[in-house]
Amino acid sequence: MNYCSECGNSVELRIPEGDHLPRHICTVCELIHYSNPRIIAGCLPVYGDKVLLCKRDIEPRLGYWTLPAGFLENGETTEQGAMRETWEEALATVEILSLYTITSIVHVNQVQMFYLARLLKPEFGSTSESSEVRLFSEEEIPWDELAFPTVVNALQRFFNDRRESGRYPLYRISLNRQDPESNELLSQSEVEL
Amino acid sequence: MNYCSECGNSVELRIPEGDHLPRHICTVCELIHYSNPRIIAGCLPVYGDKVLLCKRDIEPRLGYWTLPAGFLENGETTEQGAMRETWEEALATVEILSLYTITSIVHVNQVQMFYLARLLKPEFGSTSESSEVRLFSEEEIPWDELAFPTVVNALQRFFNDRRESGRYPLYRISLNRQDPESNELLSQSEVEL
Repeated sequence: MNYCSECGNSVELRIPEGDHLPRHICTVCELIHYSNPRIIAGCLPVYGDKVLLCKRDIEPRLGYWTLPAGFLENGETTEQGAMRETWEEALATVEILSLYTITSIVHVNQVQMFYLARLLKPEFGSTSESSEVRLFSEEEIPWDELAFPTVVNALQRFFNDRRESGRYPLYRISLNRQDPESNELLSQSEVEL
Repeated sequence: MNYCSECGNSVELRIPEGDHLPRHICTVCELIHYSNPRIIAGCLPVYGDKVLLCKRDIEPRLGYWTLPAGFLENGETTEQGAMRETWEEALATVEILSLYTITSIVHVNQVQMFYLARLLKPEFGSTSESSEVRLFSEEEIPWDELAFPTVVNALQRFFNDRRESGRYPLYRISLNRQDPESNELLSQSEVEL
């Protein structure tokens, strides 16, 4: 950031009074410009014993398989965002079942949320973002061609939960490429208090 | 937004190719500027049969009671953000137990997350953001002086769960002041698939 988006004058990086982090502040109108993590909302669409994946036709990770997901927009709930992205990327209509994974991806300032969702009909198709969309059973998952670690995590947990318990808790995950020792994957069990 | 934060020239509002929403786009360098919802992370700190609240010493809602919470910063996980805010607003050290409420507040483009947390010691204090910090039993909660609907929801659910079951599921909540009929509060039970 070099210029104030409100008045067009130059900004400087300094800690505002009462704050503890440097922010971009306009040298003329003194507006403080904050930068914060963004939310990615998506679905893990399930149909029978299969899940729906999209082959990315856009960068990054063009040609790799992913779950339908994208940036949450202003004016929508996280569930609406997840359903919208599933429609936009896969022409698929889903019913949200539960929040399944929530991942803080610290090195890119993102929080990703995948909802477990039921694909209502086996109807879907390729789009401008996905060159191919199809259902995969566990044996068919192209593990070496998945686009993102968050997709790997969600699919691994899903097939594991399905095999072990048929129960799908919330997973809270932290990923930080700059500090891999801080990475965590916690299954959220019910709390006693 | 009036000016490009990168090159300082004027922006126009139009739908980029391949997109479906109007964005601010620089008329010279063509950079697309996105605006997305922000995350508020906070805690519901519990100590014995009491919860910790802060009396706001800042706007908005100065003088009203709230749970410690604030904007998630770049470079931290949602759990780290919740613990940091609890320290900054209440000088309290907590252990995160579970994600308890996640609320899409559509009319202000925010997603709020409250973590159920254990206050490790009955040590806390007022700060530049909180004129008073104290523990409240259920009978003492100043229901008419709570700062935000999300705080009301979290506290109501907490005392209700405590009384009814001693179990604390995740609540997924949607709030939209412009469309109150769409408001929802769902307890996330375990899914069958």
